[in-house]
Amino acid sequence: MYPKPIKEFIDNFSKLPGIGPRQAARLAFWILNGEKKVRDNLKKALEGLEHDIDICSVCFFTMEHSRHGEDKCHFCDNPARDHKMICVTEKETDLATIEKSGNYKGLYHVLGGLFSALDTAIPKNLKMPELINRIESKKNGGKKIEEVILALSSTHEGDLTAHYLERLLKPLKVKITRLGRGLPYGADVEFADAKTLSGALDGRKETK
Amino acid sequence: MYPKPIKEFIDNFSKLPGIGPRQAARLAFWILNGEKKVRDNLKKALEGLEHDIDICSVCFFTMEHSRHGEDKCHFCDNPARDHKMICVTEKETDLATIEKSGNYKGLYHVLGGLFSALDTAIPKNLKMPELINRIESKKNGGKKIEEVILALSSTHEGDLTAHYLERLLKPLKVKITRLGRGLPYGADVEFADAKTLSGALDGRKETK
Repeated sequence: MYPKPIKEFIDNFSKLPGIGPRQAARLAFWILNGEKKVRDNLKKALEGLEHDIDICSVCFFTMEHSRHGEDKCHFCDNPARDHKMICVTEKETDLATIEKSGNYKGLYHVLGGLFSALDTAIPKNLKMPELINRIESKKNGGKKIEEVILALSSTHEGDLTAHYLERLLKPLKVKITRLGRGLPYGADVEFADAKTLSGALDGRKETK
Repeated sequence: MYPKPIKEFIDNFSKLPGIGPRQAARLAFWILNGEKKVRDNLKKALEGLEHDIDICSVCFFTMEHSRHGEDKCHFCDNPARDHKMICVTEKETDLATIEKSGNYKGLYHVLGGLFSALDTAIPKNLKMPELINRIESKKNGGKKIEEVILALSSTHEGDLTAHYLERLLKPLKVKITRLGRGLPYGADVEFADAKTLSGALDGRKETK
């Protein structure tokens, strides 16, 4: 139906997460009917991902390539951050959400994924050996890691991965914490599900 | 927070329709953590839109550039289609939906937009003069156009544009029709809104 270049655009863009063939078709015609500058900027943005990004050798977050000579990102390289804490996240966008919440001033560690209940072995791409290494080697500016916060999603996969990490890190004598469970901000008790409520009861706090 | 190339990716991709900054960030890291082939294919797909697409000089649908020498798409150029009917659509993806429904064998005309109630003048980019020209000049393989179907959305903008087109085409002594209004397939009368129901009543058919 569509000409070949449009079909190829739809095929490739509908492979992206959250984009289906219908939205890909809309994107194709929107871009096609738009200005040349828009197309150029999109191409440049893709090239930027390819050539201008490095991965931090310590926490595996991204950093700009132009900071050459350095292999640490602006978190790991920043003496103003608390180098005694590591917050472990599944992915880069989780890290961004935590950072934007504004209350955390320690370091990060991007795991790069979670286990699935279907996995028969621990996925090799997860940066777990590197996390152990960080805690053992005191690589973080010579300071000992005192706390590791497992900031993983409160899903089955998140729980599975957190349990495994807890057992893995226990011998290293480091304090391991997880994000609190409870009612999200603005939530109505009446409509809370059972798991959320039992988490909120377990995590109840004495009033001051 | 994010390195500059990621920020630029987010800025540019969140301008696309239906993609917000959060999804753009997810896309950035998905593409970044994926294979090089994926990035190459996305770039190629954008270049394909730029270099390999022409617009049909008759109906303004897209066609592949490689069919050089020809300026008609595979609808307008196909003698097996009914050259006495033109189906007018707002945009290319509407045309695709109608074509996929499989029941229409005539020609098309991509208008390129609709009026908005806020417009003080008829938008200049709409291919209305070209539609009139097609009907008047009998350009379609020498055959006279007998029917123009206004296949515009049943929204305020669609109605406004259809009314304008009706008045515009009336002097040309051509049959003008609009898509039927009524209950969509699978709909429950109980939950139908008033406008849909009154459309369905107006468009009622005698049983055979």
